[in-house]
Amino acid sequence: MSKIKTADGEMSLQSADTLLGTITFAIMQTNFWVGDIAGNVKKMSALALDAKSKGADIVIFPELALIGYPPEDLLLRPTLAERVKIAMDELSKIEGIVIILGYPHIDQHGTFNSAAILQGGSQKGFYHKQCLPNYGIFDEHRYFNKGRNQVLFDYKGATIGLLICEDIWHDAPIRTLKKEGADLVVVLNASPFEVGKQIERKELLTRQAKTHELPIIYANTVGAQDDIVFDGGSLIVQADGTVAHEGSRFLNQLIMAQFNPNTKVFDEQLKAPLVLSEESEMYQALVVGLRDYVNRSGFKGVIIGLSGGIDSALTLCLAVDALGADKVYAVMMPYEYTSSMSLEDAAAQAARLNVSYTVCPIHDAVEGMRATLAPLLASSAPDTTEENLQARARGTILMALSNKFGHMVVSTGNKSENAVGYATLYGDMVGGFDMLKDVYKTDVYRLANYRNRLEDNPVIPERVITRAPSAELRPDQTDQDSLPDYEMLDAILKMYIDEDLGYKAICAAGYEPAVVEKILRMVDNAEHKRRQGAIGTKISKKSFGRERRYPLVNGWSITGAF
Amino acid sequence: MSKIKTADGEMSLQSADTLLGTITFAIMQTNFWVGDIAGNVKKMSALALDAKSKGADIVIFPELALIGYPPEDLLLRPTLAERVKIAMDELSKIEGIVIILGYPHIDQHGTFNSAAILQGGSQKGFYHKQCLPNYGIFDEHRYFNKGRNQVLFDYKGATIGLLICEDIWHDAPIRTLKKEGADLVVVLNASPFEVGKQIERKELLTRQAKTHELPIIYANTVGAQDDIVFDGGSLIVQADGTVAHEGSRFLNQLIMAQFNPNTKVFDEQLKAPLVLSEESEMYQALVVGLRDYVNRSGFKGVIIGLSGGIDSALTLCLAVDALGADKVYAVMMPYEYTSSMSLEDAAAQAARLNVSYTVCPIHDAVEGMRATLAPLLASSAPDTTEENLQARARGTILMALSNKFGHMVVSTGNKSENAVGYATLYGDMVGGFDMLKDVYKTDVYRLANYRNRLEDNPVIPERVITRAPSAELRPDQTDQDSLPDYEMLDAILKMYIDEDLGYKAICAAGYEPAVVEKILRMVDNAEHKRRQGAIGTKISKKSFGRERRYPLVNGWSITGAF
Repeated sequence: MSKIKTADGEMSLQSADTLLGTITFAIMQTNFWVGDIAGNVKKMSALALDAKSKGADIVIFPELALIGYPPEDLLLRPTLAERVKIAMDELSKIEGIVIILGYPHIDQHGTFNSAAILQGGSQKGFYHKQCLPNYGIFDEHRYFNKGRNQVLFDYKGATIGLLICEDIWHDAPIRTLKKEGADLVVVLNASPFEVGKQIERKELLTRQAKTHELPIIYANTVGAQDDIVFDGGSLIVQADGTVAHEGSRFLNQLIMAQFNPNTKVFDEQLKAPLVLSEESEMYQALVVGLRDYVNRSGFKGVIIGLSGGIDSALTLCLAVDALGADKVYAVMMPYEYTSSMSLEDAAAQAARLNVSYTVCPIHDAVEGMRATLAPLLASSAPDTTEENLQARARGTILMALSNKFGHMVVSTGNKSENAVGYATLYGDMVGGFDMLKDVYKTDVYRLANYRNRLEDNPVIPERVITRAPSAELRPDQTDQDSLPDYEMLDAILKMYIDEDLGYKAICAAGYEPAVVEKILRMVDNAEHKRRQGAIGTKISKKSFGRERRYPLVNGWSITGAF
Repeated sequence: MSKIKTADGEMSLQSADTLLGTITFAIMQTNFWVGDIAGNVKKMSALALDAKSKGADIVIFPELALIGYPPEDLLLRPTLAERVKIAMDELSKIEGIVIILGYPHIDQHGTFNSAAILQGGSQKGFYHKQCLPNYGIFDEHRYFNKGRNQVLFDYKGATIGLLICEDIWHDAPIRTLKKEGADLVVVLNASPFEVGKQIERKELLTRQAKTHELPIIYANTVGAQDDIVFDGGSLIVQADGTVAHEGSRFLNQLIMAQFNPNTKVFDEQLKAPLVLSEESEMYQALVVGLRDYVNRSGFKGVIIGLSGGIDSALTLCLAVDALGADKVYAVMMPYEYTSSMSLEDAAAQAARLNVSYTVCPIHDAVEGMRATLAPLLASSAPDTTEENLQARARGTILMALSNKFGHMVVSTGNKSENAVGYATLYGDMVGGFDMLKDVYKTDVYRLANYRNRLEDNPVIPERVITRAPSAELRPDQTDQDSLPDYEMLDAILKMYIDEDLGYKAICAAGYEPAVVEKILRMVDNAEHKRRQGAIGTKISKKSFGRERRYPLVNGWSITGAF
């Protein structure tokens, strides 16, 4: 007989085996689909039985595994409480293993982001997340009430404390658990990916474990939901801060770990630390992001407009790696300003990746638009209006093919372009998903080189990487006619967007004030374009979309004193 | 000498006149532009001096007047604290009047949504909002810390308590002010419009005033920011709950009110209660929403595609009422399926409203697209792909005219269409602002009839209102080929979207389960279209956009048990 201290007070936990001995944990680093409660229950049931058959005492599912993360306003649906009840009753029936899972708890006090302890036919206790993130991509105060109590339970002689995600990033919750006698802390997470995040997590867990002399199980979820990717990398850290186990990144995985309640030490399975290069983790995040989005959207495949340039070349690689070449359709839509180099390189990319490839010249489409517009535009000189016509003709062609054949258009605009509005709304911005939305142009080059290094025969022709980038919307155009070189542009953009620095601070870093002002104005003025753009996978510290919420029209002065 | 109890403790307030006597309040129901701190300071300074010259003792500016509402992530800008300091120093210089204003307060404890009390060269005290809304359109936990203290100050023998917006919707803050000796409560607000909101506010204030036997000054802001409209209607309520003053709706206004500290009663200027019809307040909200958005965006005017149908007809009226006929450009873009009735009625609308009108047949544009696509689509039967081509040709034409002449495209899709996805992305959804985004089709009819009743010669031809609605994308098409009749559609949509009811509850209200299921699926499946649509003014209880945050792909079962 063990005791559980829950949010509701102490409860007794029937334990099949109360003798001291090793506790076997099964950490289920698994992809649970947002909203699909019935599907997630089915998946959890099968995984719990699998863990049991492998000898696990306790199986752990991540934060909000029951409904997926982030469920957003599905949490406000009036039938949620009854759905959760049915689901939890179903899961409670599983015998012979203790289940710890993340779920939305709804009672007379409100809705909580909670962890349940299920065993032998009933729910034995629950813990409510205390620290609710409401910054960046997170809106947890919109949905959840704060938990106010620590929860600990005894099992086979070990006292186990529960925490959820944000809780472990603060000091108070783990400190209190230690004070209340925890031998071990289990943290359920839905921790989103960004470059360098796993290093940050390890530093955090090592510090918390050492500071409080507590071993920690950190179970993370995996897979993508809309623009967010969860990268797994679940961790088990000893009380001395060393990493005993580390889950794969970006993959479903069952991690089995033995805990000795006498020594309070985990077995160690980790031989050498797993460190992915930045390029590798960015690339994998983008692949998972596209794959889960396309597969869950019901589209049969994707269609990509190839320009012969590096953005669409990299997008094509990512799509093939995400979905397989047979689900990727490439279309090259040349016009008068398309170079023969572009035509050759687009064809070469498609051929090397073995994807369906069509050339569809847009002359007739553009000329039709021009003819329709001629009486209205006759007296005005050509400007970007005419360039936009080409981009919009291409967007319309891609959408027609998408409508007819059921493939999602994947657009190829990178973060640098999205930032400064170097893109045509309803033109090259057309699509259900923007592959490179959060990838700066300089990182596009890094990723292209990274992908080429993976195989003996590079999939992206070298010339695509070395040529001067151009939208090819007028003769001899290059991106640098309108923009500073990408090294400088990206450096300034990263300060303004990712670091949230202002005009003065960026100038102080050594950049020409006139250039800084121009770029910052371009960023602010392009907010209306970004607002209508497709979503894309977050890989940076601050992505466009729900993570960066700016008014569309506002009077903030970039250079003014106030 | 009077005392102020602030978040920082008690402070003394120099008062020019400490004799008992009437206190004259000036409530500045004014439009402050988000982000434009320097401009707002200039406006407040002029208004404070104006109030002083009219004999006011205390001038009141609404919630966050200094930076406008909602400032969103501008609150995270690193230079905000220094900008606020410069602004507050500037405002503090105003002599001879007490200023109460809403501003973002930043100190070592964080950022607060605060009210400042300025007098005679310095800031005498401040109050921090205690109840932070984080539902619906609100994200205040993202930016602000909660205040923990009541603030009261004595002036000419009256003890005045301060509250900010959400505070007054809860019981504790006003109850505590009463207990601490308040004679009067001043509430600064940025309370967004929705239909019926003013009635709700009056009920609330009457109840709070009577319950706590406290007179209340409720100062609201006015004007639009992106998709949100603030409708003014500031109120002064006596301790017995009667309304003494009511500000105009949707207009800037200075409200002067006398308070007698002996009797604790306000003078009454209100002769009869102001009650706007639903149609009138919806119409005005839409006018203000478009006007402020267009004027602040820097566009010279708007361009609207007229179809001869009721949505574009109403949009045209609203645009003319918002901006003036000389800033509105109408284009009719007929194709083979456009009826002569549509051509006639579009021309008649433009003529009656005296706006620039152009007919631009899209035959060449559509045929050009068809020619370009012919080799790829040759073997497939015509379907919505071909209908979308027409809509996208029109979208491209409108954008070309916008690019060339600098007028913002205003789209005309209503809430019913947006809900079920009865619209072409990058086609009729093209635009910087969607006039009717939050207006159900049945309300479009109500508003059209309302607008027609305002003048002896109706501006919308009667036939536009009585004809069967049609997208005219194929021969003899009507909306009801694809949708239930709009009365039923809107009734179901309002339950699903505005009331957040589920499938079972809607069926229980007496609707055919198959119809309910079909509509709910259409709503869920159109999320990706809405995410890329233009913003539009919120007028309903729950608008699309920041107020309704759904995952794009999700596995929620509409009809399932869980």
